[in-house]
Amino acid sequence: MKIVCGIKQMQEISGKLRVCGKGIGFVPTMGALHAGHLSLIAQARRDCDFVVVSIFINPLQFGPQEDFKNYPRVFKQDAAICRKAGVDCLFYPGFLEMYPQEYKTYVIVEGLSDKLCGKFRPGHFRGVATVVAKLFNIVSPSIAYFGQKDAQQAVIIRKMATDLNLPVRIKVMPTLREQDGLAMSSRNRYLTPEQRQDALSLSLSLKLARALVKSGVKDSSKVIIAIRQLLGSKQKVKIEYVSIVNVDTLEPLKKIFGKCLICLAARVGKTRLIDNILIGS
Amino acid sequence: MKIVCGIKQMQEISGKLRVCGKGIGFVPTMGALHAGHLSLIAQARRDCDFVVVSIFINPLQFGPQEDFKNYPRVFKQDAAICRKAGVDCLFYPGFLEMYPQEYKTYVIVEGLSDKLCGKFRPGHFRGVATVVAKLFNIVSPSIAYFGQKDAQQAVIIRKMATDLNLPVRIKVMPTLREQDGLAMSSRNRYLTPEQRQDALSLSLSLKLARALVKSGVKDSSKVIIAIRQLLGSKQKVKIEYVSIVNVDTLEPLKKIFGKCLICLAARVGKTRLIDNILIGS
Repeated sequence: MKIVCGIKQMQEISGKLRVCGKGIGFVPTMGALHAGHLSLIAQARRDCDFVVVSIFINPLQFGPQEDFKNYPRVFKQDAAICRKAGVDCLFYPGFLEMYPQEYKTYVIVEGLSDKLCGKFRPGHFRGVATVVAKLFNIVSPSIAYFGQKDAQQAVIIRKMATDLNLPVRIKVMPTLREQDGLAMSSRNRYLTPEQRQDALSLSLSLKLARALVKSGVKDSSKVIIAIRQLLGSKQKVKIEYVSIVNVDTLEPLKKIFGKCLICLAARVGKTRLIDNILIGS
Repeated sequence: MKIVCGIKQMQEISGKLRVCGKGIGFVPTMGALHAGHLSLIAQARRDCDFVVVSIFINPLQFGPQEDFKNYPRVFKQDAAICRKAGVDCLFYPGFLEMYPQEYKTYVIVEGLSDKLCGKFRPGHFRGVATVVAKLFNIVSPSIAYFGQKDAQQAVIIRKMATDLNLPVRIKVMPTLREQDGLAMSSRNRYLTPEQRQDALSLSLSLKLARALVKSGVKDSSKVIIAIRQLLGSKQKVKIEYVSIVNVDTLEPLKKIFGKCLICLAARVGKTRLIDNILIGS
């Protein structure tokens, strides 16, 4: 496995592969890899001739009060995981390589970026869209892989790639969960055992929601109330939002029909967690 | 010469060329081609294996009060000009091909886009950066050609391409002028003979500025006053701005030294014209 830190070097590698007609599978990450990332890598390995993983903790997508400084940095472990998973190339650029002095260009996806998580993390999705556009131009993937856990991110990146005519296919893979149901996230390692226990209510409340919908409840408000009640019963959980939205437009739905997304965000202690389920797909 | 209206078809053509290792030279235009465009095409012809010209009047870069509706549309003439100039492929997409319903993604270059012309045309450079990013992703050029007449546009596009790691080289070619000095522009055809006469003051005032600088004047304010006096003496000319700026940052310079750009915009009747000269390069 090659470890590449320079953008030019990465572009030379991907350029050569493209000229050879090789398909590049790309998994962009912020490191602290877990089984969720591994499932993306495994899918890329199945689909593509060459697999690139990037590790870059993108400061642009963190708010000033957020956990950029404390975000887990475990490069050696991550590199070992990638090597074992059959990754061909690990792209690991430094901050100034990605954002040199006088950096000025941003990619925005209007309408989708200020909803849901965007309300609580202003600028977050601008940071995400910008870094992913850059990474796509550096890695030239034929297919890029994202996790369904970050549902809004996946919708925004798909829209960005379509709108900007980026010649890349976006594959969104199912959320992986711990045995007890907690959605896998690099941020789970922030949780104390007590918080970890209360955090279970996120996935439990979504399970409850799915059961309600299956039982015939069509009113979004009723499902949202049920989720809020369950989450509200946990001392350490502070809800940010609970929403039921169209999977493409992220517009709230009054009635549950067709493909929709039930999604939520909450703080458990200082740790911000998100989770979601797809209904009807 | 192939005329291509579909994005997918264009991407297939450029993709195949890239796989063959062919260099693509790209001249994006809004049509109404003149000798200035032809000089870009000729340079592309000299530099590259394959030359693509695009004609797309990009509504995103026109303000609500601007001349989008009246912008000259002379496709047949333009196509004949391109054919004669040895263009390999003319990309001519429709509005909905470029901006389908629910289009949401924009590219912004902060800092550079609100200065000079940007002050008078809010949103203009967002429209330019967005359409050029899209066109680059569609045409995959190795080199893209722009005219120095649109100096701010060239600076912004170069910054955008660098910042977003687009694997394209930007070449900016000198402004072409009519025999009497008027900078070539598709908008010149709006001018009445009287306006055409007064419009000459734009290039004349820049010539005067160059002479002043050559004679040792270093104070930007003095040069700007001289330009304003000359322009102000013409009844049909209404100045928007006259500035002397750094060629990369577009920041105003108090003293003229090194490479700088003397640039201006004015309305002649209803027609908005721009012109500029480079000093010290």
